[in-house]
Amino acid sequence: MSELLSKASFQGTVAMLLANPDREAGLEKQERDDLMLRFEGPEGDCHGGLTRKSDVRMIKQFKRGTEVRNARQLSILSEEELAEVAAKMGIQAVKPEWVGANIVTRGIPDLTLLPPSTRLQFPSGAMITIDIENLPCRYPADIIKSHNPDQKLGFVAAARNKRGVVGWVEAEGLIRSGDPITVWIPPQRIYAHG
Amino acid sequence: MSELLSKASFQGTVAMLLANPDREAGLEKQERDDLMLRFEGPEGDCHGGLTRKSDVRMIKQFKRGTEVRNARQLSILSEEELAEVAAKMGIQAVKPEWVGANIVTRGIPDLTLLPPSTRLQFPSGAMITIDIENLPCRYPADIIKSHNPDQKLGFVAAARNKRGVVGWVEAEGLIRSGDPITVWIPPQRIYAHG
Repeated sequence: MSELLSKASFQGTVAMLLANPDREAGLEKQERDDLMLRFEGPEGDCHGGLTRKSDVRMIKQFKRGTEVRNARQLSILSEEELAEVAAKMGIQAVKPEWVGANIVTRGIPDLTLLPPSTRLQFPSGAMITIDIENLPCRYPADIIKSHNPDQKLGFVAAARNKRGVVGWVEAEGLIRSGDPITVWIPPQRIYAHG
Repeated sequence: MSELLSKASFQGTVAMLLANPDREAGLEKQERDDLMLRFEGPEGDCHGGLTRKSDVRMIKQFKRGTEVRNARQLSILSEEELAEVAAKMGIQAVKPEWVGANIVTRGIPDLTLLPPSTRLQFPSGAMITIDIENLPCRYPADIIKSHNPDQKLGFVAAARNKRGVVGWVEAEGLIRSGDPITVWIPPQRIYAHG
């Protein structure tokens, strides 16, 4: 694998960390100074766990509620993309806590377009593997609209390809606000038979 | 995710299943009629486990022996690529048991080039998520050479981009020899900033 992953020419920074211990409290999360990443997911966040119930996102693959490995332990968005989405929506900001973010990055261009199996590495040794981009859905859209009744465009339309990525913990460790993020990218090529 | 993954136009078949309960016995595995996939990995195989010790493949990312999530629970190769590698090496066959295969596929073109986060689905509901291609290394090379002292080209050179992929269990279930394999491919695009 040392030959498979290439270190990106840029480095990111952790702009903000968030967690929400209580799923019943809704999607909105609270800011944190640091976050301990365990194989089970980020400590103190309700979206952790080694497995989860499959939802509408994989309805073509699984009956809803099927127990599947949790490749969505963390939701990662970028400050730059959030600002672009807000601009498109004609609102001042899309706050990370409205969209269920655990990590907000700065300095990773087109975060949402990072290839699957990209690795994000932190100074403690913590490592997150990206599964796939996240799709904008109704839940955050409703929260944002409740805060911004005068929005010009809805979140689902504005956030397409800018809603960040989801991933899982490959190596445990503490991550802190302000940490640099090293990005490791897998071989890139288009599969010809898709 | 239902909008993210596209069903491939082709369908694969499970040509062969293998497992090896004893790591000390070496890389060589034995054929099986079926294989139970658990979140911990394939039952009765020594490369299972939720975590594993990192090895030389990730030496740029981790100190050797670091506990990491096991994204290499299964080694998957294709019958067609194995035949191509054997032809390049000038030998009759590269047997799946020589290269640590758990699953040998038939009918998935360029298996090794499947994009990371591609899903392989089986009739029982079992699902494997592909992490990344596998790199040819010395261990299988030595085994193959011991069986084929007259080979014209070494395995490491011959098997580049044809050594299959590794992956992990996303949904549990039994897989059987002869099973059809449905292939779900993530969005394909080249990340411009790599």
